[in-house]
Amino acid sequence: MQLSELISKTGSWLTGKGPEADIVISSRIRLARNLEGRKFLYQASDSEKADVERFLYGKLENIPLPGNGNYFRLDELETLDRLLLVERHLISKEHASGSGARGVLVSANEGTSIMINEEDHLRIQVLHPGLQLEQTWLEMNDLDSSIEERVNYAFSPKFGYLTCCPTNVGTGMRASVMLHLPALVMTKQITKVFESVSKIGLAVRGLYGEGTYASGDFYQISNQLTLGKTEMAIVENIGSVVPQIVRYERTVRETLMSQSKALLEDRVWRAYGLLKNARVISSEETLDLLSAVRLGVNLEMINRLDIGQVNALFILTQPAHLQKIFKKKLDTSSRDLARADFIRGKLSGNGVK
Amino acid sequence: MQLSELISKTGSWLTGKGPEADIVISSRIRLARNLEGRKFLYQASDSEKADVERFLYGKLENIPLPGNGNYFRLDELETLDRLLLVERHLISKEHASGSGARGVLVSANEGTSIMINEEDHLRIQVLHPGLQLEQTWLEMNDLDSSIEERVNYAFSPKFGYLTCCPTNVGTGMRASVMLHLPALVMTKQITKVFESVSKIGLAVRGLYGEGTYASGDFYQISNQLTLGKTEMAIVENIGSVVPQIVRYERTVRETLMSQSKALLEDRVWRAYGLLKNARVISSEETLDLLSAVRLGVNLEMINRLDIGQVNALFILTQPAHLQKIFKKKLDTSSRDLARADFIRGKLSGNGVK
Repeated sequence: MQLSELISKTGSWLTGKGPEADIVISSRIRLARNLEGRKFLYQASDSEKADVERFLYGKLENIPLPGNGNYFRLDELETLDRLLLVERHLISKEHASGSGARGVLVSANEGTSIMINEEDHLRIQVLHPGLQLEQTWLEMNDLDSSIEERVNYAFSPKFGYLTCCPTNVGTGMRASVMLHLPALVMTKQITKVFESVSKIGLAVRGLYGEGTYASGDFYQISNQLTLGKTEMAIVENIGSVVPQIVRYERTVRETLMSQSKALLEDRVWRAYGLLKNARVISSEETLDLLSAVRLGVNLEMINRLDIGQVNALFILTQPAHLQKIFKKKLDTSSRDLARADFIRGKLSGNGVK
Repeated sequence: MQLSELISKTGSWLTGKGPEADIVISSRIRLARNLEGRKFLYQASDSEKADVERFLYGKLENIPLPGNGNYFRLDELETLDRLLLVERHLISKEHASGSGARGVLVSANEGTSIMINEEDHLRIQVLHPGLQLEQTWLEMNDLDSSIEERVNYAFSPKFGYLTCCPTNVGTGMRASVMLHLPALVMTKQITKVFESVSKIGLAVRGLYGEGTYASGDFYQISNQLTLGKTEMAIVENIGSVVPQIVRYERTVRETLMSQSKALLEDRVWRAYGLLKNARVISSEETLDLLSAVRLGVNLEMINRLDIGQVNALFILTQPAHLQKIFKKKLDTSSRDLARADFIRGKLSGNGVK
């Protein structure tokens, strides 16, 4: 598959289907794994790194993935293509901006991606729409086992899986859910959520992981600790908290609908009107406006769009996607024009039901 | 004619026709006149005031006006109805909020209105679309003469027409044009216009005359002095300045179109998108957004509306008009809902070409 084919569709995790998918965008498990008998990457020479990449690709290229896999060697891709993979949540920003031999194996439905030579030899990600962390973990567990049949992991009976960064030692697992919480943000209740969540050892991050701020009212909730707890305990911990946040968001939405319906509708429809008519629009404003439109679709104020279409717009309006869609390099101000143009096309005419 | 019939149409001066009508909304002449042998109103008792009203109505009720006239006795109208007349520029705010016997004779096309017992016994207004101050003056001169055939004006060979306020003595005339100057405002060149205009003894005021601030990028330019100059000289003074301002606005529009077309289009279409989608909208925001839409129609960016329709929206979305249209008293926040509703109706469906 050509990388450019990616832009004609979005990953299955963005369909908007799945439990609580109006509020929970996705459930994600990521494992950090390293090979036994090989240096950690921060100690490895370029040729040792290249050896690892070759070795792992050889072992994994035929591993069964949903709808088969595609391998992209990042060091052979242009910056724009690497950024495209970041925008689709298939690789991390670090993996994109890293150096040397490295790659990613991506399943056709984009629900699975296996990064080779990111921070660790392997970073394995499974992503599903909606709130289904246990299901995601079970699938990940199978995938992890089938990788372990092909390679030997660096493992200590005392510490568990060994990783470059001590914060990942143990399970090597990061479980996270991406939440869309516009009502909690609008009513400034979101800080309460942060406080409760951090009290029980969970972290809150923005749309593109560590170090990014929450934009478009999207928040990732994930475990901080990887050591001293089983994978299932971590999954259950998050799995017990998220439904409470979902209920909280839902309650606030209902309150807004009963007490300030006109103001809420005003916010939603103004956002829609701006997206449908703007001629110049930044990425940040797009996220904010799409967030309001997404809320409007969920609350059945807007019925000419479905959640899958809105979810897709979040991805397709990002810088690398736009440049791929318009098939040329665009600077920031040209992108703002192209973005407005693209969104207008999607919201009027065939793109909209 | 019932007052409520007014809301089904707008005055002929709002059609958007006439010379330079894209920039010059209207040309207006107003004369202040008093009756010979009667006290100025600030000295008159209630019954003397009532006498003047009765006398003048009797003399003027059959005066020929375009399409015949309608007389409204303001002291018999509800506040809302008086406000309606203010919003249509048929009476002044002062006339609406005054006390005692007073009224206004309005021509069917709303181009002429004769206020009885405003500040002076008579305030006569002639209003035309576009830049046609001389034509307006000629028509006013005829009207003034035919009134003078019926009543005797207070006139001094030395000072001219005598008025309550010394600033009106002499010609008793205020000539003004209403300009729509969005490009000069946008590029902050408008202060230069103010400076030049005030240097030659002209005044700049907002949409509803003295003491109102310019909203929706509308400015009234009028003479300060009424004494020591003939009416024609006053008209010619304004008539020589306004075309320069019009040219200035036009040049800036052209520059914006050639240098920042996308940003200008963005501004215009965002305004249109907000008006078409908002569920709650204030009077002030409506003026600002309509101003951008008006510019867009003039620049042929928006072709689904004509200037007459946009001009009408400026009037019809004012508080009293809204309450008349919705046939009930509405407080500010109910008006903001009703206004959004009304505008949406006008911009989608039959209201729009």
